[in-house]
Amino acid sequence: MDRPAKERKRKKGRQMTDTKITLPESEIPTHFYNIAPDLPTPLSPPLHPVTREPVGPDALAPIFPMGLIQQEVSLEPMIEIPGEVRDIYRLYRPSPVFRARTLEQFLDTPAHIYYKSEHVSPVGSHKLNTALMQVYMNRREGVKRLATETGAGQWGSALGCACKLMGLECMVYMVRASYDQKPYRRIMMRTYEADVVASPSNLTASGRAVLAEDPHSPGSLGVAISEAVEDAVGREDTKYALGSVLNHVLLHQTVIGQEAIRQMELAGEYPDVLIGCHGGGSNFAGLAFPFLRDKLRGGQRKLRAIAVEPRACPSLTRGKREYDFGDVAGLTPLLLMHTLGHKFIPPPVHAGGLRYHGAAPLVSHLLDAGVIEAEAYSQGEVFASALQFAQCEGTIPAPESSHAVHSAIQHALRAREAGTREVILFNLSGHGHFDLGSYESYLNGTMDLNA
Amino acid sequence: MDRPAKERKRKKGRQMTDTKITLPESEIPTHFYNIAPDLPTPLSPPLHPVTREPVGPDALAPIFPMGLIQQEVSLEPMIEIPGEVRDIYRLYRPSPVFRARTLEQFLDTPAHIYYKSEHVSPVGSHKLNTALMQVYMNRREGVKRLATETGAGQWGSALGCACKLMGLECMVYMVRASYDQKPYRRIMMRTYEADVVASPSNLTASGRAVLAEDPHSPGSLGVAISEAVEDAVGREDTKYALGSVLNHVLLHQTVIGQEAIRQMELAGEYPDVLIGCHGGGSNFAGLAFPFLRDKLRGGQRKLRAIAVEPRACPSLTRGKREYDFGDVAGLTPLLLMHTLGHKFIPPPVHAGGLRYHGAAPLVSHLLDAGVIEAEAYSQGEVFASALQFAQCEGTIPAPESSHAVHSAIQHALRAREAGTREVILFNLSGHGHFDLGSYESYLNGTMDLNA
Repeated sequence: MDRPAKERKRKKGRQMTDTKITLPESEIPTHFYNIAPDLPTPLSPPLHPVTREPVGPDALAPIFPMGLIQQEVSLEPMIEIPGEVRDIYRLYRPSPVFRARTLEQFLDTPAHIYYKSEHVSPVGSHKLNTALMQVYMNRREGVKRLATETGAGQWGSALGCACKLMGLECMVYMVRASYDQKPYRRIMMRTYEADVVASPSNLTASGRAVLAEDPHSPGSLGVAISEAVEDAVGREDTKYALGSVLNHVLLHQTVIGQEAIRQMELAGEYPDVLIGCHGGGSNFAGLAFPFLRDKLRGGQRKLRAIAVEPRACPSLTRGKREYDFGDVAGLTPLLLMHTLGHKFIPPPVHAGGLRYHGAAPLVSHLLDAGVIEAEAYSQGEVFASALQFAQCEGTIPAPESSHAVHSAIQHALRAREAGTREVILFNLSGHGHFDLGSYESYLNGTMDLNA
Repeated sequence: MDRPAKERKRKKGRQMTDTKITLPESEIPTHFYNIAPDLPTPLSPPLHPVTREPVGPDALAPIFPMGLIQQEVSLEPMIEIPGEVRDIYRLYRPSPVFRARTLEQFLDTPAHIYYKSEHVSPVGSHKLNTALMQVYMNRREGVKRLATETGAGQWGSALGCACKLMGLECMVYMVRASYDQKPYRRIMMRTYEADVVASPSNLTASGRAVLAEDPHSPGSLGVAISEAVEDAVGREDTKYALGSVLNHVLLHQTVIGQEAIRQMELAGEYPDVLIGCHGGGSNFAGLAFPFLRDKLRGGQRKLRAIAVEPRACPSLTRGKREYDFGDVAGLTPLLLMHTLGHKFIPPPVHAGGLRYHGAAPLVSHLLDAGVIEAEAYSQGEVFASALQFAQCEGTIPAPESSHAVHSAIQHALRAREAGTREVILFNLSGHGHFDLGSYESYLNGTMDLNA
């Protein structure tokens, strides 16, 4: 590992020697980019779960504030970010883009590997981008309290932090299995004064029904969603918040890609390949959509955008695009999306944030239109790459983000074979500080590598 | 918590609206600042543990490389940072200085509170600053492997990361109690391929002697130091590395204060009060020493520099300044320092990194010369402030760093009483992601608040 230093010395000039590409706070985006009006064909509307008729905005009003519902169906190309939200973004935005020089050296590739670092947020992932905006929009309409579900805990801690920073109460239904296995994420939510209960809980009818059948139920994301929605519907002061999948959530993440466009300009490069891991779709979309605008509007630049999912939960690469429910119980409106079926229970892979049966309707639409691509990998491959990354770049990536790391490494190795100087940009959506138990199972050889 | 946003809107201009003060990589310091030649009186030399005669550089040669021994006794005012070390610093340096606007609002204080953010390093603390430099200096002299001890694990993970990045092997003797209670820190070291064993271990005579007496010994920092030193002395390819206390370690941390001086200039302010937590002394010194240069050279600017320690381990506020051993067994040279006695076993407070019986000789010297001050607080006060900080600024501070947070809050509250616009700058030396078990004990009411 002596080469990187020599490599660094050989290069000259700002762009060639700097490891981080940073932007001043004045370059925090002022608007979200809405991809909807740029789609080749319009998005199909959600359908009512019973009548299967298209649902209008009013149908969502019991659980979401009207401002977010309007964003969900908006065809405005740019939507302004409120000053207060931008001010709190200053705590961690603009996030840096890193050039992974040591990793490039280690791989001996002519490719240039860049990563956008969303792990620098106080909660350690990109989820805070939408959490702050959702809390703001709810508070503006007089909502005092938000209810949500969380699996691995990233979304719950982001919403808890955003609620605390903006003065709302927060109620998190955390899947029982994670509640017991990931105590640090749960404690993090409590430091932000969020209420966290293990789901299924005794607080809701849905929870009590599950507990009546099995008092020791480990819970599931489907049950937790039902509990959070029931909580929100049942209380005047409370709405529900979702951390991915829906159009408005993806919209809020486009601050990532807008900053990255500017940062790649400063680096004097344009990406040939964009890579993001994919569970519900929000971090992939956040990076990719602003770059895709040019492509969708007929720009001549070639650009591949790749969503990377676990082989254990391959909604994009193996799922069908059809109308399906967002939850296991079949209570939500039907969305037209790539799905493994709403009854599909993914195997317990360590990338908990990617264990969702469906994909964002927007991402599904772009995949079918041939605008983007998808890849799937086993967790053994993914963790091997995660370790390689940590040992070169220092930062330990989240298991979810490690899917993007692995894909980036594959593309860099292919560039070596082909002798091409490909420019790769991936989204490091979160750090792995709360996932070291997963790393241990890999290091100890107890992980199911083929899952 | 609505006021912060209004406050932000009221202010104008770059310095008044930016939350982070960042620097380009070109402003990573080129030299370390050596405070030794600026001291009012010279530092007293270490003494031989048996003869009590001053020891020369040669006496340290079995455990440290000559380059670091020379830095330990150097009177050069500035010592150049090698290009390779500066290049790796680019992964996280210059670290940002934040203005804690939301905390100021919450406290309703006219004080301006700034914090230097060393928690942004890949390992989550300032320890990497010296780890990289120590690995570099060892490698330059042909050393292949470093041995060290670690308590809570911050130092072990920093040295492990630095060794991996620069191609050395790393052996960490981790206090058994922490090894069992802080598995995540241990796994982090393993992701960097460091060898980590619980101390006392069977690998050394010191370890075996302790195990022979008590096979279930929880270990101690004193035992772990003995094991690491014995390991280094016994192998041709191995040296020993220490994470605080010694002059050269404090020297390497002065990158912190040098950057902060420039950042405060950009903010258009000069600190009235500088604050750092204090265990061995390195993070306090790293922030304070470069600011103190001006004061020691007769500058007219008023500046208070305050080292903050746990009431449970009050070496500066309650210890005597006298020659004492660095380790429990009494094997190291004697250092003239504030100490609670090398047999002192601190109560098991949660700020594991501050549980050391002594203080850096340089810090002790400055305290006695009246150049700096010291404060001590109970862990109950400290955790209350840590939560307040997390709930205002988002970032969860390490228990060690939370001592600086608490002191900063106290000074800000006193400024409110006095109606003075005091400028406070403290060092946020690390994040608390691996210490959430401590937060839980505080939240659950099981912590000994008075310790």
